[in-house]
Amino acid sequence: MRYGVILAGGGGTRLWPASRRARPKPLLPLGVGGRSLLAATVARAARLGGVVIVTAADQAEVVRAEVGDAAEILVEPVGRNTAAAVGLAAVHLAARDPDAVLCVLPADHHVAREDELVAALSRALDIAHAETKIVSVGIVPTRPETGFGYLELGAARGDGVRAVRRFIEKPDAARAADMVASGEYLWNAGIFVAPAARFLGDIRRHMPEHGRVLDAIGAGADAAALYPSLPSTSIDYGVLERTTDLLCVSGEFGWNDVGAWSALAEIVQPEDGGGVRVGGPLVAVGAKNTIAVSDPGTLVAVIGIDDVVVVQSGDAVLVVPRARAQEVREAVAAIERAGLGRYL
Amino acid sequence: MRYGVILAGGGGTRLWPASRRARPKPLLPLGVGGRSLLAATVARAARLGGVVIVTAADQAEVVRAEVGDAAEILVEPVGRNTAAAVGLAAVHLAARDPDAVLCVLPADHHVAREDELVAALSRALDIAHAETKIVSVGIVPTRPETGFGYLELGAARGDGVRAVRRFIEKPDAARAADMVASGEYLWNAGIFVAPAARFLGDIRRHMPEHGRVLDAIGAGADAAALYPSLPSTSIDYGVLERTTDLLCVSGEFGWNDVGAWSALAEIVQPEDGGGVRVGGPLVAVGAKNTIAVSDPGTLVAVIGIDDVVVVQSGDAVLVVPRARAQEVREAVAAIERAGLGRYL
Repeated sequence: MRYGVILAGGGGTRLWPASRRARPKPLLPLGVGGRSLLAATVARAARLGGVVIVTAADQAEVVRAEVGDAAEILVEPVGRNTAAAVGLAAVHLAARDPDAVLCVLPADHHVAREDELVAALSRALDIAHAETKIVSVGIVPTRPETGFGYLELGAARGDGVRAVRRFIEKPDAARAADMVASGEYLWNAGIFVAPAARFLGDIRRHMPEHGRVLDAIGAGADAAALYPSLPSTSIDYGVLERTTDLLCVSGEFGWNDVGAWSALAEIVQPEDGGGVRVGGPLVAVGAKNTIAVSDPGTLVAVIGIDDVVVVQSGDAVLVVPRARAQEVREAVAAIERAGLGRYL
Repeated sequence: MRYGVILAGGGGTRLWPASRRARPKPLLPLGVGGRSLLAATVARAARLGGVVIVTAADQAEVVRAEVGDAAEILVEPVGRNTAAAVGLAAVHLAARDPDAVLCVLPADHHVAREDELVAALSRALDIAHAETKIVSVGIVPTRPETGFGYLELGAARGDGVRAVRRFIEKPDAARAADMVASGEYLWNAGIFVAPAARFLGDIRRHMPEHGRVLDAIGAGADAAALYPSLPSTSIDYGVLERTTDLLCVSGEFGWNDVGAWSALAEIVQPEDGGGVRVGGPLVAVGAKNTIAVSDPGTLVAVIGIDDVVVVQSGDAVLVVPRARAQEVREAVAAIERAGLGRYL
């Protein structure tokens, strides 16, 4: 059977103050129709088959409150990066269903064209199942983004499926421009598909420490005791980059990783006045291209500044120019240094 | 006996969203030591003698909650501008104390050097009492402000007291610069002193309609029935400008009318980082000269914008450049037009 495996771990500070330690980014209402990104991802995964969410213990409660009975939740005692999380889902599902095929999905991405993505995921699941392969689902790049990793494409098979030659770390601007212009690279969105047994085989081969711990947990050992000892390694680094027969399918999907507040201008329809808003009303006077986010019922008024991001969430307010939205991380660091960590 | 008569009527929108219909500007915690401007004014008035607050019915409850037993509160059925308010206090106090001398004080000004102002008010009260005169207390101007009215000085008496030759409406920038350079003009701060009987005599002479209504109220007529019929006229226009023997004393007093959010930079000590804040903490990263106002406990973070005003109050957030803080009124009008008057 097919399973959507949603990775809902990790923190992320670039969407502070809406995202907090107690309300991570997947819980933000930035999905299509005002759903949380997580709820949108669960709905997407449900179109593939069963839905499993892997999350760390400290976020399990808010995740459960958000999705209710719509997903099975696997709780990691502590977060140990994506290799462990995928491995935990694989060992859990393989025990239940030896033919389980997994589609791994990040919980915090926005997808405007769900049907296209679900069709591509479905195709990837078919190929992975039929050929016992790992199939990455890459995003056709629309700009020379330096904030993402890329997949370098290899041989074409004639059916639209390509080999993946190698993984490229975040490039500089010149390299990114060359790569995007060549048409031979995809954004690595962290979406990939394989039979559970194939994932586990590759983990055992390339990451023997992970393999031993996961097999012990599969045999009934106490995860709480074993799991924390696992190295924090990504599935990309630990498995995918070492897999010689990696395939990929691709599309654009209106995909957006919502990596900073400035991304809202790409995923939210503008108001009449030209700004975009999520939450309460926006009044902009002599202010173009505002991005406003607030609690429902909280009004944001901007006068006489163009291209500004204003985010109010609970007991914090952020103001930053759109072009500097990446620097929210620096503000978060400054808040921590100022002894104001309770706001994070 | 001497009385401080505090005029706490009127709305004012330039300090939105902290000032609202239900929480007018005098209630904002912008006085020295974090007190409300009203509480600071009551403390100032109490150093002169009895304290009377004149306020309109729709604000009486919040005013009473703010000052408790520290002042007697006279409630106008409806606000009818300052001539009616001063007249109401005068008729009320004259009935109790024929020798009452009144010092009229706006409720919403910030004064850094209370002792200096109280000394000047006390001197004005002495002169007004001894000579049965109206004595204005003017502010020595520190900049060519175009937002204030001015008093043109007349003959000097040798004791520092000057005659007032006439009132000047808000001047243009060139005229304001000339006036300030000449040293012969004061800002009209709406502070003035006279015996209650003198105020009433002048009101009867110059404003016979007010005189009749106030005398009827003094004789026990129903204020709720008569008061609303009064024209809305300022005491400046109705009485002071027509008074031929008006005197004045002057000083600087660290006086500030807090006419817009930008004024906070003049009355609040800056943080280490260079910004000023009232309420919750401020974290500024690559942002100079921030003015931040928030509910206590609410953090304001500003990244990469200089000279910005950020105000969070309850269910509204305002962002405006310091140089455009006067335009808050336009935002308030836009909010009203947008059907969002519940935020005002």
